[in-house]
Amino acid sequence: MRDVVVIGIGQTPVEEHWEKSLRHLAHDAIMPAMVDAGIETADALYVGNMLSGQVSGQEHLGALIADFVGLRGIEAIKIEAACGSGGAALRTGYLAVASGVHDVVLVCGVEKMTDAIGGMVTNALATAADQEYEVSQGISFVGLNALLMRRYMYEYGVPHKAFAGFTINAHRNAANNPYAMFRSPISEAAYLKAGMIADPINLMDSSPVCDGAACLVLAPADLYKAPAKARILASAVATDSLAVHDRRDPLFLEAAALSSQRAYAQARVMSSGIHLFELHDAFSIMAALSLEASGFAARGAGVRMAADGEIGIDGRIPISTLGGLKARGHPVGATGIYQVLEVVQQLTGQAGASQVQGATIGMAQNIGGSGATVVTHILGAV
Amino acid sequence: MRDVVVIGIGQTPVEEHWEKSLRHLAHDAIMPAMVDAGIETADALYVGNMLSGQVSGQEHLGALIADFVGLRGIEAIKIEAACGSGGAALRTGYLAVASGVHDVVLVCGVEKMTDAIGGMVTNALATAADQEYEVSQGISFVGLNALLMRRYMYEYGVPHKAFAGFTINAHRNAANNPYAMFRSPISEAAYLKAGMIADPINLMDSSPVCDGAACLVLAPADLYKAPAKARILASAVATDSLAVHDRRDPLFLEAAALSSQRAYAQARVMSSGIHLFELHDAFSIMAALSLEASGFAARGAGVRMAADGEIGIDGRIPISTLGGLKARGHPVGATGIYQVLEVVQQLTGQAGASQVQGATIGMAQNIGGSGATVVTHILGAV
Repeated sequence: MRDVVVIGIGQTPVEEHWEKSLRHLAHDAIMPAMVDAGIETADALYVGNMLSGQVSGQEHLGALIADFVGLRGIEAIKIEAACGSGGAALRTGYLAVASGVHDVVLVCGVEKMTDAIGGMVTNALATAADQEYEVSQGISFVGLNALLMRRYMYEYGVPHKAFAGFTINAHRNAANNPYAMFRSPISEAAYLKAGMIADPINLMDSSPVCDGAACLVLAPADLYKAPAKARILASAVATDSLAVHDRRDPLFLEAAALSSQRAYAQARVMSSGIHLFELHDAFSIMAALSLEASGFAARGAGVRMAADGEIGIDGRIPISTLGGLKARGHPVGATGIYQVLEVVQQLTGQAGASQVQGATIGMAQNIGGSGATVVTHILGAV
Repeated sequence: MRDVVVIGIGQTPVEEHWEKSLRHLAHDAIMPAMVDAGIETADALYVGNMLSGQVSGQEHLGALIADFVGLRGIEAIKIEAACGSGGAALRTGYLAVASGVHDVVLVCGVEKMTDAIGGMVTNALATAADQEYEVSQGISFVGLNALLMRRYMYEYGVPHKAFAGFTINAHRNAANNPYAMFRSPISEAAYLKAGMIADPINLMDSSPVCDGAACLVLAPADLYKAPAKARILASAVATDSLAVHDRRDPLFLEAAALSSQRAYAQARVMSSGIHLFELHDAFSIMAALSLEASGFAARGAGVRMAADGEIGIDGRIPISTLGGLKARGHPVGATGIYQVLEVVQQLTGQAGASQVQGATIGMAQNIGGSGATVVTHILGAV
């Protein structure tokens, strides 16, 4: 098995890209990544995307995008694992390079959510959850997360405002990221007075509907020593029941625990050895649960990390360092690639005012379906 | 890179499974495959599926199915490449085993098309084609194939009835396959009087809307010598433009040529060394084009192979030996797995009255989007 490195990165700003279609968005991430890597072709393309069939009437993104970026003929496949699609696409690209089958692989996450009308995005996002057992009963995806947040507040005696720190941190960090959607810092007062979406999740607890694309170029370490930006030290996927009611304990993300344990074992580090953690803060409750499942906080203590400032750029474990899902934005199938791309930026000292000083090991964790699929990657500086 | 073998197979009958949901169908293919392989667990599951988001309101099939078959926790990801999704899922499973990352991998193709209402399946299948450039102009997927067939008939001066042999062969072979949807042999007269779908494609030129699931268990050759059923000699993916009008020549499937050439090189065989060929006869025109692009016939001569009987069980290159897409059925995301499973049946002498005598090398070719993604696998007897 070969060691895999990242040799190029590219991204579009996360925003409402009304003037660009799916293939244009992907193009605008892939082209700069190829220039960054100094390559003119690639052996394969793995595309992470969740919603294009439902929102844009377009499946089959692998061949579509390969052709549009001038790579007609190469192997190209779409990978889907709900909001974990980007991480799962990286996982597949990693397998292709590690196996020795391909030398230069593009991994692109792309999502276009804003072309949808009416409740289309709400319905499409709910396909990440169990349609027959849960969604058919009338619950939406944000509704499921609201139940988790309410339960967390009840079990641990936590008030809603205790979660404010996650959002404030994310917006503060996004202000330093030119590719982020929301670059205005927010106050606790603004958090508290935000409109309610699904009680207790308010507008400031939730990541936005948005468009974006991000791309990584992967290669084997032994062949591409010179341009390598970061090494992939671990790549791990774990799953849990889609139906939240079927889980042993809804407040413990077992797949996140399993996925990060597998990743720690592969990378031979412990959670204390991670210098920054790009976690899946699609909703602020998920930030707390991820910190707990991945070993950064005891159960029920994840939310306190927000209040205590441990998650800031200079804190014990910086999270959402370039805005996270909340403030960089969460174009669902692209998010897993943005996360890893931002870890690469941190490890190469390209994170600007959000730079975590001395960071040499970073972790990204991409989650699908409120914890049903969890993809964890650990990267190391070259 | 490790050699990969198939150690177990499982399938459901292809039919209208009104009483079973997606997860049940997948279960009914995975369980017999695991029993066949003599395993009680697996390291990972890759699911091939195209339509579940649009037709069943359910994405995220990896985790959903892993949980339902009692494998909660394992790596599980869905793979999509339109009608080539099954082949692409096998490709991904192959990478996972070849790389050394996983030892026992399940690859399951599953599709449930019959739950759809109205024109839903027609619209959903059209997401395999280029929405912005072609589908938005009003054409359906069968319409695109009808244009190809009409053009073929015009360019090569071929009458419609020349294609009858493909359908007659498929139905004759399906009669020997208890898992096939259509097990009644048909006559040329029946072919000629079949109702028109999209001129010149009639009902007997077209594969049916149906449900089904099929599963393969993969493992490394060095660890699982004893139960191995067949070796994977080649695994190759190639792509072309989704938009048929953008191709250099609509009547030559460049991706099929590229994919089979890559596969022949990996397996170190030529087309003349292939003993049977499970090709992608979603429409009879695709059978002719596949034979030509893969080196079994000169351009314009593919259709003559049907008339000449070269494609029968005892012919020069038997195709659709257990019914093909036309008569076994074409549950789109599952088809690529059914094809390879049937090659395994042939190589292990389990094809009953459809047995190709002495077959030791078989090829399966799964196509998405009228030739935009082509996945070719070559298998060898153990």
